[in-house]
Amino acid sequence: MRKNETPCYYPDYLQLDKIIQAQSTVSKDYGDEAHDEMLFIITHQAYELWFKQVLHELHSIIPLFNKTPIDERELEKITHRLKRITKIQTVLLEQIKVIETMTPLDFLDFRDFLIPASGFQSIQFKEIEIILGLKSEHRIDFDKKSFYSRINEEHREYLLSLEQQPSLFELVDNWLSRIPFLKFEEFNFWESYAKAVDAMLQNDKEIITNFSNLSEQEKKQQFTELDKTRAHFDALLDKDKFHQLNDSGDFRFSRKALLSAVFINLYRDEPILQAPFQLLTTLLEIDERFTQWRAQHVLMVHRMLGSKIGTGGSSGHEYLQKTTMNNKFFKDLFNLSTFLIPRSSLPKLPEKLQQAMNYHYVNMS
Amino acid sequence: MRKNETPCYYPDYLQLDKIIQAQSTVSKDYGDEAHDEMLFIITHQAYELWFKQVLHELHSIIPLFNKTPIDERELEKITHRLKRITKIQTVLLEQIKVIETMTPLDFLDFRDFLIPASGFQSIQFKEIEIILGLKSEHRIDFDKKSFYSRINEEHREYLLSLEQQPSLFELVDNWLSRIPFLKFEEFNFWESYAKAVDAMLQNDKEIITNFSNLSEQEKKQQFTELDKTRAHFDALLDKDKFHQLNDSGDFRFSRKALLSAVFINLYRDEPILQAPFQLLTTLLEIDERFTQWRAQHVLMVHRMLGSKIGTGGSSGHEYLQKTTMNNKFFKDLFNLSTFLIPRSSLPKLPEKLQQAMNYHYVNMS
Amino acid sequence: MRKNETPCYYPDYLQLDKIIQAQSTVSKDYGDEAHDEMLFIITHQAYELWFKQVLHELHSIIPLFNKTPIDERELEKITHRLKRITKIQTVLLEQIKVIETMTPLDFLDFRDFLIPASGFQSIQFKEIEIILGLKSEHRIDFDKKSFYSRINEEHREYLLSLEQQPSLFELVDNWLSRIPFLKFEEFNFWESYAKAVDAMLQNDKEIITNFSNLSEQEKKQQFTELDKTRAHFDALLDKDKFHQLNDSGDFRFSRKALLSAVFINLYRDEPILQAPFQLLTTLLEIDERFTQWRAQHVLMVHRMLGSKIGTGGSSGHEYLQKTTMNNKFFKDLFNLSTFLIPRSSLPKLPEKLQQAMNYHYVNMS
Amino acid sequence: MRKNETPCYYPDYLQLDKIIQAQSTVSKDYGDEAHDEMLFIITHQAYELWFKQVLHELHSIIPLFNKTPIDERELEKITHRLKRITKIQTVLLEQIKVIETMTPLDFLDFRDFLIPASGFQSIQFKEIEIILGLKSEHRIDFDKKSFYSRINEEHREYLLSLEQQPSLFELVDNWLSRIPFLKFEEFNFWESYAKAVDAMLQNDKEIITNFSNLSEQEKKQQFTELDKTRAHFDALLDKDKFHQLNDSGDFRFSRKALLSAVFINLYRDEPILQAPFQLLTTLLEIDERFTQWRAQHVLMVHRMLGSKIGTGGSSGHEYLQKTTMNNKFFKDLFNLSTFLIPRSSLPKLPEKLQQAMNYHYVNMS
Repeated sequence: MRKNETPCYYPDYLQLDKIIQAQSTVSKDYGDEAHDEMLFIITHQAYELWFKQVLHELHSIIPLFNKTPIDERELEKITHRLKRITKIQTVLLEQIKVIETMTPLDFLDFRDFLIPASGFQSIQFKEIEIILGLKSEHRIDFDKKSFYSRINEEHREYLLSLEQQPSLFELVDNWLSRIPFLKFEEFNFWESYAKAVDAMLQNDKEIITNFSNLSEQEKKQQFTELDKTRAHFDALLDKDKFHQLNDSGDFRFSRKALLSAVFINLYRDEPILQAPFQLLTTLLEIDERFTQWRAQHVLMVHRMLGSKIGTGGSSGHEYLQKTTMNNKFFKDLFNLSTFLIPRSSLPKLPEKLQQAMNYHYVNMS
Repeated sequence: MRKNETPCYYPDYLQLDKIIQAQSTVSKDYGDEAHDEMLFIITHQAYELWFKQVLHELHSIIPLFNKTPIDERELEKITHRLKRITKIQTVLLEQIKVIETMTPLDFLDFRDFLIPASGFQSIQFKEIEIILGLKSEHRIDFDKKSFYSRINEEHREYLLSLEQQPSLFELVDNWLSRIPFLKFEEFNFWESYAKAVDAMLQNDKEIITNFSNLSEQEKKQQFTELDKTRAHFDALLDKDKFHQLNDSGDFRFSRKALLSAVFINLYRDEPILQAPFQLLTTLLEIDERFTQWRAQHVLMVHRMLGSKIGTGGSSGHEYLQKTTMNNKFFKDLFNLSTFLIPRSSLPKLPEKLQQAMNYHYVNMS
Repeated sequence: MRKNETPCYYPDYLQLDKIIQAQSTVSKDYGDEAHDEMLFIITHQAYELWFKQVLHELHSIIPLFNKTPIDERELEKITHRLKRITKIQTVLLEQIKVIETMTPLDFLDFRDFLIPASGFQSIQFKEIEIILGLKSEHRIDFDKKSFYSRINEEHREYLLSLEQQPSLFELVDNWLSRIPFLKFEEFNFWESYAKAVDAMLQNDKEIITNFSNLSEQEKKQQFTELDKTRAHFDALLDKDKFHQLNDSGDFRFSRKALLSAVFINLYRDEPILQAPFQLLTTLLEIDERFTQWRAQHVLMVHRMLGSKIGTGGSSGHEYLQKTTMNNKFFKDLFNLSTFLIPRSSLPKLPEKLQQAMNYHYVNMS
Repeated sequence: MRKNETPCYYPDYLQLDKIIQAQSTVSKDYGDEAHDEMLFIITHQAYELWFKQVLHELHSIIPLFNKTPIDERELEKITHRLKRITKIQTVLLEQIKVIETMTPLDFLDFRDFLIPASGFQSIQFKEIEIILGLKSEHRIDFDKKSFYSRINEEHREYLLSLEQQPSLFELVDNWLSRIPFLKFEEFNFWESYAKAVDAMLQNDKEIITNFSNLSEQEKKQQFTELDKTRAHFDALLDKDKFHQLNDSGDFRFSRKALLSAVFINLYRDEPILQAPFQLLTTLLEIDERFTQWRAQHVLMVHRMLGSKIGTGGSSGHEYLQKTTMNNKFFKDLFNLSTFLIPRSSLPKLPEKLQQAMNYHYVNMS
């Protein structure tokens, strides 16, 4: 228990003198205070508080992930912290409904005073994006340029240096690439997998051919689609093709990492793969929620500004709409289902391999 | 109380013999039942149950809205029922999180048996869309064609006949067009409004000009944006220009309706405009939530299928993505903020007009 | 737009130097920092930020409500701000799920260092309770004593002085008491209402008597229940009985206020009563959400501490459980349904009265 | 893919002819249909649909849990299905907000026609309660009696026979009791644990003694509390005392099961304990959400009925309030924190034991 004499006092411990004294409306400098400016300030501050917590989790995960090999004990901890981020994201989404109680007309009461400040200038949000793996090279043009040009020197340098450090995306890629089991003694998963894939694609082809209620034109469209899928599989199984698609941005993961991710998803029931499966699923959820958050943010901005320009000079909701789909961190995980095959076609693992993926003390209970 | 002798029994009243006996998995006809097919069935049934409730509300609102004039007593009732729809939509959104507990691999266990059934074939959902105002002419090509070609004769005829009836969109347009007050004795709102708009746009122009941290190229882009906004205002205030934009799909409301919607938003504090303001806001919320629902649905389908084709033969998530933004019912309400001007520039209403917009018994308390 | 030369910079405007620099863990003073203490701090700070916003709304409502008569224009504004509070409360509820990601074992890593700090010491939360209407006299003993004994002199004096000022509860009571219409020319609502009530209670009595599947003992119990309901009605309609029950704490509203609240609920369709009905409903929702928040807080504390004592020395979840039900602000509104009668038995209002409750400009559209 | 010729049609596959044709309002038999009765029916039907899904999951879990030993592969599956139940529960909670859009006055329009039907008569809900582990002997008197007396012969027999089968509670108890590791070669966890507990309680005693801002009376109260905690620990560590408390209902788990649950919570980082920890946490969450659901249901009923009797003859919200706290399935898991000790005092496991709790193939990556 506390060694020192002063008892802990809640308002002091939480530094509330800072937290709840940090709201100063700019509208009151120009006349009557706009009632809703306080809401605007506090909502954004609440976002920043939670961003700090997200960063606290991410910064603690990076070093855990940066070890080789990663201790099994730590995998669970990493997933637990990532899951916490998803709960925080639910709060972030819910906060949009609070700010939406400010009507466009109420926003006009103080909007002009904020120019050219903008959500672009949330250093912490960009920090989250960079640590997760969204570097300048992945941003769309407007996002890339306007962002770094609007923040001050100190912030810019901090973020640029952060871009040099390994992101969670890269560490996950490394970790996945290292996962063993895909070749095990005489077993070569990829050969069996390739055969199973062939069978499945053949099946899909028949489905389309036999669709009585598809017009010829529609069938043609579907075959084009199917060829694309087959090309994806080919790429996964063929080194050279993969690198072509990787260069064109269709894949972000390395081929080895992607292969492992598919393996984990297919054999997730094996005890040793359960934690990795949870981890990948949680990363996907984080991505999904940021996408959702961006989508709802677009709707809110659209409703608030119509086709007016944003305070930061962006074209408002149209710009944001573009980042919604583009700024996914783990888009390969979204596309992973492309490479799944039904359990019934799944190559069976050799018994020795299964044992290697279980506990010493098999059957705890 | 009950006149008849048989006491009401909960399971009979709810016809549970039908409701919970209506789940028959197709996978069990082909071998082992896929555990998650039950979830798939029940989730979709829950959607259909709630769609029925949404339709119950919409079908009750249409005749209330179809009267001229609409009794003030009814306006509140209409809004109350529309608000109920938004609460149902929150449930619909939450249900996506349940279906997401089915992993892509689990879906593969029975996906092929469902072909070519598809969510396209939800008659009730299309019914909701049509009643709200989304007719064939507003759908993107794929949506339009593939939809009517996949449902049976009876369903097709029902929906086509529904397209002939007045939609909520049309009734709202009519109602808005009838709203008085915009011209009142010597007062002509549109003249004062046009002046205020001019002042505001001049102000926006200065903002851009004085932005020190915008490059010349960015400024140019912003001026283009501003010209577009001015063109919108011009269109609102100029009959001919409006009809050009209306024809090109930039507006869906009639000009009179749009003018009234702007008026209601600007003077929403006047007692008689409070109920109309609530109603418009609730319509916007319904639209927003359907947009959200579509967006989350896209993410879910993407995660479930990757780049595979949908069971209904669509290209899955890419097709859905297009409908997300296109299928808004009241897009003019989203764009309304374009036409708002700050309270400080708002033309003051003549006292006599204000009185006309208040109660007989002024100051109830 | 901004008059002064310095452009507005997002991190400065939000005073982020204060907001995200105000987290200092106490665990690091005693050894290794406990990873989850940051979450503990930030969650509580997020609560305090939102409490500040709730207070911003409440402090703006009090003077609006303190006028006689209240301008109809203001009623809508009051309700809008109260509704915003309910949206904030949804965020407060969601935040519990974030803090729940901290397991009891993780909490033990720093719990002892916090003693004797406690949520009791959230001055802003107590401020909210007091402004809404929960004064010392309404608190259960433990709550009353332990609360004021644990905060410092300055905070105690501030809150005690606040207890002297009119609370929202009192202002709502005054406003309800003033509402006209209950007597209008030859019409006396209470006489007609009393008759309708008699008929309804007679009906309920028959329901119980004719229940074939209730045992004699159960029927007896129900009749006791019914007598209690009748006593409530009697009290509402009889001045002396009312004051007896009011003294014993069964009612908190004055009789006049309660009568008006019943009237508003019964005739809420009349245009002039729609805004008051919304207002009462929103107050009820605020109360409901605080009750929910308390209930979930109890569960969380129970799970976190088991039967250990709280850091503030309270017996933890058992103490909190007691406040869950006791600390409702508007419990009469929860009980209001007791006094409702079916629409079919509702006395019809005289036409002249109905006109008085409508607009000058009847039938706007 | 489909073997048979008939293509799968969405409305047929979902048996929508049953699902959306099963709503028949009773109010229309007595005059005008009450608009909101449809909402009442559909909401309850949606509940029953989801209850069926919950039962589908529970019925699939029971046999998996009933094996000895349980395959590690299955543990993950069980937890996954339990987690799905928690997502369904979130929908159940959200549905309350839909039914709350029905005001008490609207409910009065058809309430009397429903007598004596009642939520008591939801066979599926009782089925869920029984399978989870709530048997007649655990119910409060009113719940026990009124429930079985109100359902028909067939339903009663079905549920009574279900009470004879092993519940999830019992199977979890068995599984926990079998978990090894607590004694391992020369290591005896319980001896080390007992010592650590002593140290911690001594510490707590000092905390209270040194509290300068607790009055003597409050300190006395805290010491009483502490003695109770010590008694709990004693009971856990002493066979005879445990059985006394178990008989008096303070514990429901067997002592061996409770010991194992404590062990799992304390050493959850060991790979082999991660899945069991997830499982226990998920059970706790299910319990927590049912408690929340009951609590919100109470509020809703209170608001809907005031102090009127329920249609099933219960005294409405007061009865429900009592079941809220009583009907927890895994209350020992809520109380588990009582038995946790800080990580710093945690006995270190022997290396050989740690190895036994890890994978064959240590350090996968």
